[in-house]
Amino acid sequence: MSVDERREQLIAVALELFSRRPPEEVSIDDIAAAAGASRPLVYHYFPGKQALYEASLRRAGRELSARFEEPMEGPLSERLFRVMGRYLDFVQSHGPGFAALLRGGSVAASPGTSAVIDEVRRAAHDQILAHLAVPAPSPGLRLTVRAWIANAEITSLEWLGERSVPLAELQLHLVQEFVASLTLTAAREPALAAELASFFADERPDGPSGLLVRDLAGLFAVPGILDAVTALASGRAPAAAEPVDEPSAQSTEGPAGAAPA
Amino acid sequence: MSVDERREQLIAVALELFSRRPPEEVSIDDIAAAAGASRPLVYHYFPGKQALYEASLRRAGRELSARFEEPMEGPLSERLFRVMGRYLDFVQSHGPGFAALLRGGSVAASPGTSAVIDEVRRAAHDQILAHLAVPAPSPGLRLTVRAWIANAEITSLEWLGERSVPLAELQLHLVQEFVASLTLTAAREPALAAELASFFADERPDGPSGLLVRDLAGLFAVPGILDAVTALASGRAPAAAEPVDEPSAQSTEGPAGAAPA
Repeated sequence: MSVDERREQLIAVALELFSRRPPEEVSIDDIAAAAGASRPLVYHYFPGKQALYEASLRRAGRELSARFEEPMEGPLSERLFRVMGRYLDFVQSHGPGFAALLRGGSVAASPGTSAVIDEVRRAAHDQILAHLAVPAPSPGLRLTVRAWIANAEITSLEWLGERSVPLAELQLHLVQEFVASLTLTAAREPALAAELASFFADERPDGPSGLLVRDLAGLFAVPGILDAVTALASGRAPAAAEPVDEPSAQSTEGPAGAAPA
Repeated sequence: MSVDERREQLIAVALELFSRRPPEEVSIDDIAAAAGASRPLVYHYFPGKQALYEASLRRAGRELSARFEEPMEGPLSERLFRVMGRYLDFVQSHGPGFAALLRGGSVAASPGTSAVIDEVRRAAHDQILAHLAVPAPSPGLRLTVRAWIANAEITSLEWLGERSVPLAELQLHLVQEFVASLTLTAAREPALAAELASFFADERPDGPSGLLVRDLAGLFAVPGILDAVTALASGRAPAAAEPVDEPSAQSTEGPAGAAPA
């Protein structure tokens, strides 16, 4: 092996080990053994475990950022759905070892590791804005994108610990939360309404947005919810529509007037 | 001063300093000077800066958790709005120094500091579930609550760095995002529909939910959005309704059939 090849091999082996166990449970001896190398050889390439840890994290960061790349084709929510599939696959294979680092409680955290994490977050942010293709993203929209990235990060880390819902559900929910956040941002910022209109115009009924809209339509068909939301939409207090001593007051609000518009 | 009083005073002074500057920019000498104590006296109480940092972080964590306490009265979104006011006030006064810790890139991060952070997150999670008063919160609902807490954390940290929107807007937006997340969770989990109905029934038109519903109603009154969402709700592709070569096709969809239900 050339010097470069050996270096890359050590990083690959280290990444494999650091992906499965927290850094305090991986020793230079473990890495040397897994690489079929001697301990002094490992030290010849890396001054210590922290340097090897940071090099493997950088490799992981590059691999993860590469998974964000997606052709600019098709409905936006479906592009994000594919990206999230690759992201969650990465979380499953590399997350266990890096979870503590991302949660902020790792002994291996350093300015070097946070630079890598920031870089990945920035890559995600930039990719999303590129796909949204909003000419001049407002501070509010940028904040929405960053907050959703944090949401995706935390939700997938929580999921790793508990696996309380199937991974495919998580993938769909995260995308739908993005659609909801984008809609909320447009509700606050009328300048985004045209962008949201063209976003929804390209969506498909069986894609993440279509499924979300249908789930919400079903939810808003539940009489109590419909009445309350309709009242709020027209500036009235929902509670006033159903006081305890005037049970018929509620019936003035029929599902016919249901459009939130 | 008694031993306990002096200890508490040193923690209070340290918290004040660590709130404004990252730990690497605060020395034991700074703390001693601000407390009107000698350097050996500080070392008599604390073995070193990290111990004092962790003690002041624990104090900050307790103060922050206390701000989550809110009477179980009134519309839920307004309770959360008040809590977020106190939370953001805390972020403003203590956030600058602890931002790096929360972002995961602090040299002072340790198992001790992450235990404090986890404790605060758990307190927030438990308070929210107590106010929601859902008898047996599903894993999906718990995940929604945790993800929203992460969202609030990241969004307020980002805000600290940029202050790109007024703080009062951020307060309202975070609460509205909670309402949206809760609604999305209920859309996925029909068992939560009754809870959501009683949530909305207690909301007021000028509260965070009322304002959100009206903003969304305004947004969905925008023709392109209304048509696209209506199409998706009924299982049709929005794009099919407005092909380039059939401009009149769109007119088959009138605002009259606008209810997503």
